[in-house]
Amino acid sequence: MTSVILPDSVERAPDRPLPPHPPSVAPVVPSDGALTPLALDAVRIKGGLWSHLQDVNASATMPHALTWMEQVGWLDNFDAVAEGRTDAPRPGLSFSDSEAYKLLEALAWESHRTGDAWAERTVVELTARIARAQDADGYLDTCFGHDGQDARWSDLPMGHELYSMGHLLQAAVARYRTAGEDELVAVARRVADHVCDEFGPGAREGICGHPEIETALAELGRALDEPRYLDQARLFLQRRGHGSLGDQPHGRAYFQDDVPIADAVALRGHAVRALYLTAAAVDLAVDDGDADLLRRLGAQWDHTVSRRTYLTGGMGSRHQDEGFGEDFELPNDRAYCESCAGIASVMVAWRLLLATGDVRHADLIERTLYNVVATSPRTDGKAFFYANTLHQRTEGEPVATDRPSPRAESSTRAPWFDVSCCPTNLARTFASLSCYVATVTSDAVQVHQYVDASIAVTLHDAGPVSLEMRTSYPDEGVVEIEVASTPDRPWTLQLRVPSWAHGAVLEAPRQPARPVSPGTCVVEADWQHGDVVRLVLPLEPRVTHPDPRIDATRGCAAVERGPEVMCLEGRELPEGWDLDDVVLTGLVASDSGDEVVADLTRRPQPTDGWPYTSADDGGAVASEHAEVRLGRYRSWGEAGPTTMRVWIPISSTSRD
Amino acid sequence: MTSVILPDSVERAPDRPLPPHPPSVAPVVPSDGALTPLALDAVRIKGGLWSHLQDVNASATMPHALTWMEQVGWLDNFDAVAEGRTDAPRPGLSFSDSEAYKLLEALAWESHRTGDAWAERTVVELTARIARAQDADGYLDTCFGHDGQDARWSDLPMGHELYSMGHLLQAAVARYRTAGEDELVAVARRVADHVCDEFGPGAREGICGHPEIETALAELGRALDEPRYLDQARLFLQRRGHGSLGDQPHGRAYFQDDVPIADAVALRGHAVRALYLTAAAVDLAVDDGDADLLRRLGAQWDHTVSRRTYLTGGMGSRHQDEGFGEDFELPNDRAYCESCAGIASVMVAWRLLLATGDVRHADLIERTLYNVVATSPRTDGKAFFYANTLHQRTEGEPVATDRPSPRAESSTRAPWFDVSCCPTNLARTFASLSCYVATVTSDAVQVHQYVDASIAVTLHDAGPVSLEMRTSYPDEGVVEIEVASTPDRPWTLQLRVPSWAHGAVLEAPRQPARPVSPGTCVVEADWQHGDVVRLVLPLEPRVTHPDPRIDATRGCAAVERGPEVMCLEGRELPEGWDLDDVVLTGLVASDSGDEVVADLTRRPQPTDGWPYTSADDGGAVASEHAEVRLGRYRSWGEAGPTTMRVWIPISSTSRD
Repeated sequence: MTSVILPDSVERAPDRPLPPHPPSVAPVVPSDGALTPLALDAVRIKGGLWSHLQDVNASATMPHALTWMEQVGWLDNFDAVAEGRTDAPRPGLSFSDSEAYKLLEALAWESHRTGDAWAERTVVELTARIARAQDADGYLDTCFGHDGQDARWSDLPMGHELYSMGHLLQAAVARYRTAGEDELVAVARRVADHVCDEFGPGAREGICGHPEIETALAELGRALDEPRYLDQARLFLQRRGHGSLGDQPHGRAYFQDDVPIADAVALRGHAVRALYLTAAAVDLAVDDGDADLLRRLGAQWDHTVSRRTYLTGGMGSRHQDEGFGEDFELPNDRAYCESCAGIASVMVAWRLLLATGDVRHADLIERTLYNVVATSPRTDGKAFFYANTLHQRTEGEPVATDRPSPRAESSTRAPWFDVSCCPTNLARTFASLSCYVATVTSDAVQVHQYVDASIAVTLHDAGPVSLEMRTSYPDEGVVEIEVASTPDRPWTLQLRVPSWAHGAVLEAPRQPARPVSPGTCVVEADWQHGDVVRLVLPLEPRVTHPDPRIDATRGCAAVERGPEVMCLEGRELPEGWDLDDVVLTGLVASDSGDEVVADLTRRPQPTDGWPYTSADDGGAVASEHAEVRLGRYRSWGEAGPTTMRVWIPISSTSRD
Repeated sequence: MTSVILPDSVERAPDRPLPPHPPSVAPVVPSDGALTPLALDAVRIKGGLWSHLQDVNASATMPHALTWMEQVGWLDNFDAVAEGRTDAPRPGLSFSDSEAYKLLEALAWESHRTGDAWAERTVVELTARIARAQDADGYLDTCFGHDGQDARWSDLPMGHELYSMGHLLQAAVARYRTAGEDELVAVARRVADHVCDEFGPGAREGICGHPEIETALAELGRALDEPRYLDQARLFLQRRGHGSLGDQPHGRAYFQDDVPIADAVALRGHAVRALYLTAAAVDLAVDDGDADLLRRLGAQWDHTVSRRTYLTGGMGSRHQDEGFGEDFELPNDRAYCESCAGIASVMVAWRLLLATGDVRHADLIERTLYNVVATSPRTDGKAFFYANTLHQRTEGEPVATDRPSPRAESSTRAPWFDVSCCPTNLARTFASLSCYVATVTSDAVQVHQYVDASIAVTLHDAGPVSLEMRTSYPDEGVVEIEVASTPDRPWTLQLRVPSWAHGAVLEAPRQPARPVSPGTCVVEADWQHGDVVRLVLPLEPRVTHPDPRIDATRGCAAVERGPEVMCLEGRELPEGWDLDDVVLTGLVASDSGDEVVADLTRRPQPTDGWPYTSADDGGAVASEHAEVRLGRYRSWGEAGPTTMRVWIPISSTSRD
């Protein structure tokens, strides 16, 4: 068994100047669209939460994931294939290969982002180990097709072969765009060619039960300028929705094989599957110039966001099938909101933002990044929420720290899972986080996310622009963007004013301060070096009310501050209070910056007995009040096991 | 393959006089307790819903179940064992034998109840077919231990061998008590002896992942006066809760192996498992005179009823593990409320009623019988709800009629299921339904359920009493009980006044009418033949409010009428209305008997978009009203696919 050597401490390259880099160094580079994505290193994140997430990802999460995968034998599966040891029982579920590939993608981005020597070395070593497991014809999967294993493609609905290969292709996209041709890219080319041979026109008619190969083939095709890969992705999309995967206990919607993609009304079934598929469909709609499909996908997305999405941006209401529920089926206590679904939602929203320029997609990305994606990892990056509930009724059972957890339902993050898709998905997302900050058009820079960061771009019609963004957002609402360098030709700065930011104020150079409304604020100026644009976003905590059609939140309110959802942890309550008995009476004005304090009432607890009654207890007196700190949802559970609510009842009886 | 011949029409015996029968002809005959159960035929149900359920069960459901079991090959599994054909793939899940046994139990009760010749013949034929599959040492299971099958007892956690055998034993109890020793009883004795040999003291230490053998051994031990069986049941109970079944994806609570029975706080995990286990624990606590255990079980039950039970009496909040959720986790749209859990709840409540005499248990039995057990079957007895949701958001997908359904989530009842535990469980319950009507003590008759029925009992201290109960309850609230014959010695009549029946009035012979309160109303009189006791229960529809700690029903009310929960079907709404937009404004006084009409408001539907907002739309005007009929919950979906709600919002915004 070949072991990957782990670093004692992560070696870091010295702070490098921003390299002039082709804009194609990004995870998603569509052939067309309203906005152009930036090269990953056109944006250098320097401080704040995003920087913390990237640093912890590099120093903790990636080595942690590698250690666990070694420990549970998922990396040895590659060696076993190479060494002909596949007759022995194989550890891991059928798709465990994909975890190595997602980590590989993360390492590739990270190696490029910081020049981290350990990341670079690990890419090379892991690639070599994986390459040894590739069959002569390009097929690569440690679970099928070898001695003692089921035959290749013998379980398309649940076997995940194409799914896993898709993640390998995405890793190769990262590698190719950051380092050019190498062994990983060569392995991926052989895999992609093999998939095209096996599943191309006139060959095998199948599709994979878990979408992923589609968006991966599309991006690899874009990266390598290989139309065959895009054609294969399109073919997979066209084949879907015709029942070829057969029946499934949760219905064909589970793997979106119930209706053709263009005909769907909303995202449905298994959430990650639905979201990966939609990402691919946007990819193809954009590259094919298929405006009708893009419009249909946008309508499906709008339906999904307005009726099947949690306040946190989380998607997936059901534990049973990890799936979207029906419209307005959004239980808080059983919210699944898988971390991977949050990541996949960002993938879809990002593609739609690039395609349409509609700033609402950037709003959702921000919401989801802060309240799902950043919620999953513990601060130290070594434990994770798999599901992100909005209501923890009990502290839950402790999670195992010495072995993989089942998909934990607890207020405690777990180090690894039997299905451990989330940690490596987070790793690749955090390593490429800078891509979401800004975009360009020919004569404008769009800033979508407010982060302490440097931005250096070249505008087609104007020339090179560099910006220094300084902010403590979302702790504070002031965002200063200094124009560090500007061409002589005119260009505009476009700033997203979040949908909740009523009362935002903009100060542009040599112009009076002016109120700006949610949406896009266009700043035009006769730009000079050293100009500062100042956007002040109102961060007063606000009380948020749900659509009355959502049964699970009726009679409740939530508190938000800027892009962050707040929550009430049971541990913050006065001695003797129970989270079940609390009513939100109001918010308390607080002088201390980002602290949010709620005025709570303790509702007298009914005695036991039959819990449904025609008696009128509307006059019950709630006599106890307390001022209690609300915390950021994304940090919940960090201080230890606790109960927790995002939505808090606002009336003292059930019938007001 | 031996086929059971199905009747063209069910042969019925002429109406027979009530036989003088030993009171032990009942499903549950504890050795002690506050109340003594009656022999099954001490109560003859003559009309109304209960009679309908029994008739349809005999004429439709039992032949239907037999036909399906033959069709899907579950009966041939017995032949396959007898004929050494077990190398071929075996249809059905591991516990499919148990369906034959539950049907056998139903047939045994039915044969006795009506003298139905088809039922009697089928008992004999089915018994012969099963007996051929019994191994020489008494072991009987068509899924394990034969050529090509896994070894006996190789999967105690999920193999269901003891579970299935338990149902065989319960069928034998029915047979022995109604017909005495026969082949079925002999087969069951050999099974029970084998179980005692295999799992007795000093032998195999195991328990079954699905409780059932415990209550079955206890009752067979009572019936046959065989202490060894009771000892074995006690041993199984004592062994449980110590983790011997190992880990399980849903946790050890899934099969109640997390804590010893006496130490539990509430019923938890898989609902049917938890309820069958509790039934057995009550059996043993009673027979052992273990007052402490009985008190603990009562406290667990109280906790469960007050915090983990739906308005319908339904139990089990989670689809994922068919399990109880946490306290107050009672989602309506995802209510599982398995029909079998309703039956099992009645089993527990009945045992507790007999043990304690506490009339609250009879209240819950009534609620559960009307709103879960009677809800499951379609009126024609040939299709069933497996789960009994309280909120159907969409009409759901059509169910298959030509093949077994998965556990259908739809507004359409299905004819058979892959896991088809409910139809045969209903069959045995309906065939023995008369047992729940009344009990006796030495000098009193307790009437628990109001049904058009004759009751004939012999009171130890008074002598034979016969009563004619005439009522159209629950359509109408008047119950008349005529004393058809009475001994000279004094006795009392005890009538349950349901917990909701505020304003009930009692008219006893030669006494002024008097108001009676919920609980037990004791009627003493110098009884004379022909005396009539008249109880008038108020059946005005009432608005019911939930415990404010139940998040899923906050801001909603339900409507009940007598013991029946009402519901609103989408099909009843005016053209263009959507069930999501409806607010309950009040009830409309109706002259027409049992019709319940609600005044509904149509809430203006918000436009699409992000569904959470700080905008105050509390002033939105709801301009449309309509008077809409509410239907019985138990009949929902009978008129065709529809949406449905039990709990209806009562405020026009989410924040009132």
